[in-house]
Amino acid sequence: MVVVMRTDATEADVERVCEKVREAGGEAFVSRGTVHTIIGLVGDSALFRALDLDNLPGVDRLIQVGKPYKMVARSLHPEPTTVRIGPAQVGRATFTIIAGPCAVESEEQAHAACRAAKEAGATILRGGAFKPRTSPYSFQGLGKRGLEILAECRAETGLPVVTEVVDPRDVDLVAEWADALQVGTRNMQNFELLKAVGAAAKPVLLKRGFAATIEEWLMAAEYIAQRGNSEIVLCERGIRTYETATRNTLDLAGMAVAQRESHLPVIVDPSHATGHRDLVPPMARAALAAGADGVMVDVHPNPDEALCDGPQALRPADLQALARDLRALAEVLGRSIG
Amino acid sequence: MVVVMRTDATEADVERVCEKVREAGGEAFVSRGTVHTIIGLVGDSALFRALDLDNLPGVDRLIQVGKPYKMVARSLHPEPTTVRIGPAQVGRATFTIIAGPCAVESEEQAHAACRAAKEAGATILRGGAFKPRTSPYSFQGLGKRGLEILAECRAETGLPVVTEVVDPRDVDLVAEWADALQVGTRNMQNFELLKAVGAAAKPVLLKRGFAATIEEWLMAAEYIAQRGNSEIVLCERGIRTYETATRNTLDLAGMAVAQRESHLPVIVDPSHATGHRDLVPPMARAALAAGADGVMVDVHPNPDEALCDGPQALRPADLQALARDLRALAEVLGRSIG
Amino acid sequence: MVVVMRTDATEADVERVCEKVREAGGEAFVSRGTVHTIIGLVGDSALFRALDLDNLPGVDRLIQVGKPYKMVARSLHPEPTTVRIGPAQVGRATFTIIAGPCAVESEEQAHAACRAAKEAGATILRGGAFKPRTSPYSFQGLGKRGLEILAECRAETGLPVVTEVVDPRDVDLVAEWADALQVGTRNMQNFELLKAVGAAAKPVLLKRGFAATIEEWLMAAEYIAQRGNSEIVLCERGIRTYETATRNTLDLAGMAVAQRESHLPVIVDPSHATGHRDLVPPMARAALAAGADGVMVDVHPNPDEALCDGPQALRPADLQALARDLRALAEVLGRSIG
Amino acid sequence: MVVVMRTDATEADVERVCEKVREAGGEAFVSRGTVHTIIGLVGDSALFRALDLDNLPGVDRLIQVGKPYKMVARSLHPEPTTVRIGPAQVGRATFTIIAGPCAVESEEQAHAACRAAKEAGATILRGGAFKPRTSPYSFQGLGKRGLEILAECRAETGLPVVTEVVDPRDVDLVAEWADALQVGTRNMQNFELLKAVGAAAKPVLLKRGFAATIEEWLMAAEYIAQRGNSEIVLCERGIRTYETATRNTLDLAGMAVAQRESHLPVIVDPSHATGHRDLVPPMARAALAAGADGVMVDVHPNPDEALCDGPQALRPADLQALARDLRALAEVLGRSIG
Repeated sequence: MVVVMRTDATEADVERVCEKVREAGGEAFVSRGTVHTIIGLVGDSALFRALDLDNLPGVDRLIQVGKPYKMVARSLHPEPTTVRIGPAQVGRATFTIIAGPCAVESEEQAHAACRAAKEAGATILRGGAFKPRTSPYSFQGLGKRGLEILAECRAETGLPVVTEVVDPRDVDLVAEWADALQVGTRNMQNFELLKAVGAAAKPVLLKRGFAATIEEWLMAAEYIAQRGNSEIVLCERGIRTYETATRNTLDLAGMAVAQRESHLPVIVDPSHATGHRDLVPPMARAALAAGADGVMVDVHPNPDEALCDGPQALRPADLQALARDLRALAEVLGRSIG
Repeated sequence: MVVVMRTDATEADVERVCEKVREAGGEAFVSRGTVHTIIGLVGDSALFRALDLDNLPGVDRLIQVGKPYKMVARSLHPEPTTVRIGPAQVGRATFTIIAGPCAVESEEQAHAACRAAKEAGATILRGGAFKPRTSPYSFQGLGKRGLEILAECRAETGLPVVTEVVDPRDVDLVAEWADALQVGTRNMQNFELLKAVGAAAKPVLLKRGFAATIEEWLMAAEYIAQRGNSEIVLCERGIRTYETATRNTLDLAGMAVAQRESHLPVIVDPSHATGHRDLVPPMARAALAAGADGVMVDVHPNPDEALCDGPQALRPADLQALARDLRALAEVLGRSIG
Repeated sequence: MVVVMRTDATEADVERVCEKVREAGGEAFVSRGTVHTIIGLVGDSALFRALDLDNLPGVDRLIQVGKPYKMVARSLHPEPTTVRIGPAQVGRATFTIIAGPCAVESEEQAHAACRAAKEAGATILRGGAFKPRTSPYSFQGLGKRGLEILAECRAETGLPVVTEVVDPRDVDLVAEWADALQVGTRNMQNFELLKAVGAAAKPVLLKRGFAATIEEWLMAAEYIAQRGNSEIVLCERGIRTYETATRNTLDLAGMAVAQRESHLPVIVDPSHATGHRDLVPPMARAALAAGADGVMVDVHPNPDEALCDGPQALRPADLQALARDLRALAEVLGRSIG
Repeated sequence: MVVVMRTDATEADVERVCEKVREAGGEAFVSRGTVHTIIGLVGDSALFRALDLDNLPGVDRLIQVGKPYKMVARSLHPEPTTVRIGPAQVGRATFTIIAGPCAVESEEQAHAACRAAKEAGATILRGGAFKPRTSPYSFQGLGKRGLEILAECRAETGLPVVTEVVDPRDVDLVAEWADALQVGTRNMQNFELLKAVGAAAKPVLLKRGFAATIEEWLMAAEYIAQRGNSEIVLCERGIRTYETATRNTLDLAGMAVAQRESHLPVIVDPSHATGHRDLVPPMARAALAAGADGVMVDVHPNPDEALCDGPQALRPADLQALARDLRALAEVLGRSIG
């Protein structure tokens, strides 16, 4: 960490910073510039942050040199992590396809969507029972009944299920029925929910907040890891920008940065990132070509009647075609699918 | 609502849309253009939204003409609302100053900050007991002990207290101790929390999400109102942009738009919007001049030792000076303070 | 186009709009809603825009249904365009690799970079002689001498050259030496420059403005096309967002949307989009997998000594490896390279 | 400036950086951390930037401690600058009202608008003769005829005129007719235009780019100052964000930061920032209350017939009322108007 002093900082101000650092067991190296004096700190930076040095007189700002996360940082765990979700796995060794309905609407619709996922070669099912919706007047999900239907889909297909949890009070319930817990984009900084899933005995799929930096995303993962749960899959799903032609702006380079910075697997959700069915296959192929560890896509037996996000859902035949393309690409790229 | 058909839509596609609308009790007017055909819908637009017409074959997109919110909309309740928080009020008739420590750190610090608030003429105290923090390694607040200290501050000053709640499970506890419940920026779309505070018998101070549109902000308020609690104060606190010179970008015009669109009072938090002590007074004055219904500012007896957001906290003397300036401005603007 | 009337619009206001439209030779269809009245316009929308109907009393806003661009619109020219740059071509039939130094720094450096480009299989050379730089203290390019060096590189390699022009007064000079004219991201809305290159007899490579919407980008292309030059290649190079981990945020879905909306070829610049050498290969592969018509990458014989954007330049061996990967991928995707 | 080394940097890498710095006449202080080694540089930072140290092996990144601008920096010229435009002045001592038509459309319209400006107490006229428009199909301004009309308005009112220049080839022409040259938001990084106005003998009004950081804005001013023209007025006019309720997001805190960082006067354009007539007065009042050095507003005798940006133009009576409010506020704030 580096402390930049104000141009009008006194010698005593500089000394005060150095003392605080030394008291905390660190070392401080002063470089006196013509305009600014800066102080380089050597030691545990989490500890330095706790000193709140930027509040001391004469301090202009702190510059963080290292990373604020630890447990999820690649620099401290160079080996990439493979997360197991039921019999499936997500990690650098495979490219995983997760598919299913955006929302569970009925037994029939969910079964049809999950069968389509299975037939296309997906190894994990997705489906929403508790839906966070911008409007209180939109379909809010089937709740517990949705979880039961997903469990039936698992029984039918043999594939594990990931589903979203939106309330700390529901974590136990959802963990009972699902194979992995999803934390959605609007809840990425719902820290009470992060702590609750961190204490659960199921893997977590953590979506990036729609306006979160990569660092904040990894800090959210750190909250989960800190509670003892390191089975975390990160999911890039597009960020909010000024562009309105797509629902969000897919940050594929951000996915690659997250892989470089963290040992956790990182997948991509092209359905929510783009919001348009015709953009899902090109972005799914791009995700694979860029080195992502998997994709998660919406599929619906009849998107024209979907209660949620129909315009972005693939039809079963679309998903089949996409999976075929991904398999061909994966071979060239030296990845296996599933 | 307007339905725009695709250029390749058939006559049957157009007819299908009209039928669905008429079945739902609405009227449909078709305008056939040289390129696009559009259909104007007349009737209840919430009902039309539920039809998910954009999923029908041949439909390019829906264009919303009216607003998706109702209970908080000014168009349906032209009279502005005044919210009472303890003996104080927030609304168009007064300009309210809310002040206090960002976080309650100790009895001594909280009392000193709240005394400073009272002396400057604030009519409501703010203070955080439960703190949502980006890093799990940062100070997380004193929790229940913080609530007790705030209650002591209320007893000492006679001023009501607003404090943040971050977990639906804590709503009853916080409502027991506080005069108003704050929903923070990271929780603006934590819908379970919104529902919980909507069911509480205390007014709610709803901060705008740091990447929320004004419409999403009002929809979040609608969640609360829908549960029966219309005592809502909106708080603009800056949005995330590409600019890094300030912590956030204060959207003062957004405040004015929220006042125009909603009957709810709208205040401004210049401390969190800017993140810099020296920018707080000019932005507080600007908020008043722009017509805001109040400001909420951080004050700390000794900002250099603050455990949270010290660089943005005013010192007691700064707050006194600011309040003096605001009073002089308010007089010219025909507003009373407090 | 649709005109949305204000809730307080009078019958006379509605009639006034209809009259103006009819006078201009269009048709107007009125739909009277319970809250809003809307008017659907049938006819030439460019003509309707010129009426400035949104300035009429009682008008709330206009909603554009069609697209504001014509000459570059795919809807009016469904066949994709192939642009010829010297002996090379850019279009849907091939995947084109454009490579070369970010800036021409010296004869030696430029020749080495261009040789590397040729050896890797690039069919077009890039290189900057006139450099738009944020700081007046940064290297500003070699100017005319840079153009001469690029011409020597062309002579040596047999490959055509694209280079940036930053001043309308230089268009003739640059067109004399180069095979295609680049308009850079900061000049995408320098309309005088657009008009000047529109009048030149050389193809234009138009980069997307770093904060431009796709629609604005296509409107910039329309400026060029309108002057008689339809030989335009669009280049996505990342947009500015709140995320700072990468130099810009590559908008790969935006590339796909531009291809869908326009008949012009669209390529991707992963070097400027990411700003980091290690992110260039994954993003170039992703661009190909997403269907882009080519990539443009920086290469430098010795990036550690580059005068401009060194950290993002590939080394010759990196470029070779990337080109090999692209060739393998292209085969699976049914595209040919070069 | 601080050099952060990579975690895998060797001792030789560190030494190489230090040598380069010392060769350039600077000093280098090494702090060896447990994870990172950092090197603090003392000396001329413009010179260090030219070394492109971030391209050396083992270097992770450079952190700039000082500011990249010099001539416009407040730290080097603590005294605020007052810019004279004809008989008027812009600076900290006064609050200046600039008003006039967005575009000069006709003699009659321009005269009426300028008369309204004069009557309201504006001391400088604005008006566009050359208009940069997103669409080639929009009104592009009257060009030279517009300049003549503006000169007539000056003759009638006695007020100086500021007007936009969009092409380096037009700088002499515009400088001949106008009292100050405006560089518009889309041209803020049109460096050839900046150089050209930097060489002109007229003051420059430099609008902030709609996606420019404050630092980039000040660097654009530095380009002008470097050519010998220090008579620069900065103008904040809103930035592009994800919010669509307003045309742009007015960054009032950014205005205050520009005042703190630079000795140049900074004014605000609430018309282009918001795009809505009803938001102009509150934002103009807010600008004054926040300490801006002036405002620039659009006025039109008949906004409903404006050829450009009608919805944001004030009517003459609106401008009168606004000016009255500003005068009352200014008195309380200890500022004089005009």
